[in-house]
Amino acid sequence: MSPTRDQILQTTVSLLEKQGCHATGLNEIIRESSTPKGSLYYYFPEGKEQLVSEAILQAGQAMADRIRSHLADETPLTQAIHDLILRIADNVEASGFVVGSPLTAVAMETATTSPRINAACRAAFDLLIAAFEDKLLASGLETERASDLAQFITAAIEGGVILSRTMHSVEPLRVVARQLSTALAC
Amino acid sequence: MSPTRDQILQTTVSLLEKQGCHATGLNEIIRESSTPKGSLYYYFPEGKEQLVSEAILQAGQAMADRIRSHLADETPLTQAIHDLILRIADNVEASGFVVGSPLTAVAMETATTSPRINAACRAAFDLLIAAFEDKLLASGLETERASDLAQFITAAIEGGVILSRTMHSVEPLRVVARQLSTALAC
Repeated sequence: MSPTRDQILQTTVSLLEKQGCHATGLNEIIRESSTPKGSLYYYFPEGKEQLVSEAILQAGQAMADRIRSHLADETPLTQAIHDLILRIADNVEASGFVVGSPLTAVAMETATTSPRINAACRAAFDLLIAAFEDKLLASGLETERASDLAQFITAAIEGGVILSRTMHSVEPLRVVARQLSTALAC
Repeated sequence: MSPTRDQILQTTVSLLEKQGCHATGLNEIIRESSTPKGSLYYYFPEGKEQLVSEAILQAGQAMADRIRSHLADETPLTQAIHDLILRIADNVEASGFVVGSPLTAVAMETATTSPRINAACRAAFDLLIAAFEDKLLASGLETERASDLAQFITAAIEGGVILSRTMHSVEPLRVVARQLSTALAC
């Protein structure tokens, strides 16, 4: 991937994460990414919907990779998911509650208003869910329970990020970590 | 409350729910609420931040009231929360995935960009959490466990709404209903 194209996508993800899709204008992306205006239109000729869709997909892939890498070692399932959520909580806090999930705001803003961005959000969430599901299957859970739990874990973490960012406190994510551990050990 | 003021607030909540805060302009609110332009500035002289903050608080209060009313009867805790989530899923589906939580998108868009709207989102989430917490306490749970579980339930439902609206499917919320039941019975 070209460095300029990647820079534009990274900047877009950061702005989407901080303020959502509608507040993020192409001029702000050009300014913040320190790339020439022409580059954005060169790499994303179909405009904002194309750029946001690709940024969301890339962010989903990057998050799924981080989840897989964190869950890859020999740590038992319950402990591994607990530790992963605490790590997410640390990142959210270290950013001053500016980062969390870049998907959430965009997914809600566009669920019924942009089919293209909605499709990207679905694909991104599917990547996250699949990352958890594979670990659950590898830990010996049955297919249906693994599928259900993977969706539940993804939902609870998303909700925990929303509460933590809104409250400017890591406590909700820590609660999610503790309660999911209990639920998984059930 | 004056009917016009209430109409403006209701329209604002619907638009925030559908598309978030930044996409929602004052002119659209005036048009959709079929109220005279002067009314909006009369009732909300401080502009959009005041209007959105009051709309979010009112939406949080209305949601908390519905949760309390649903949990008020004698149905046992686990069943009552399970049924409540299925009811939320039905509403989300019946709306064509346009409604869910009016708080989520706004909370994410403004977590670090508007102290006033952020304060309203916090207060609204606190109302939801308190509605669950009171039911948990009334069901005999200890204070700390009730507080933790109320946050966990709120987070999981929020996350479930996000996944269901994004996927245009009630399945994620149904999964959250099942898994929370299991967790609560644990």
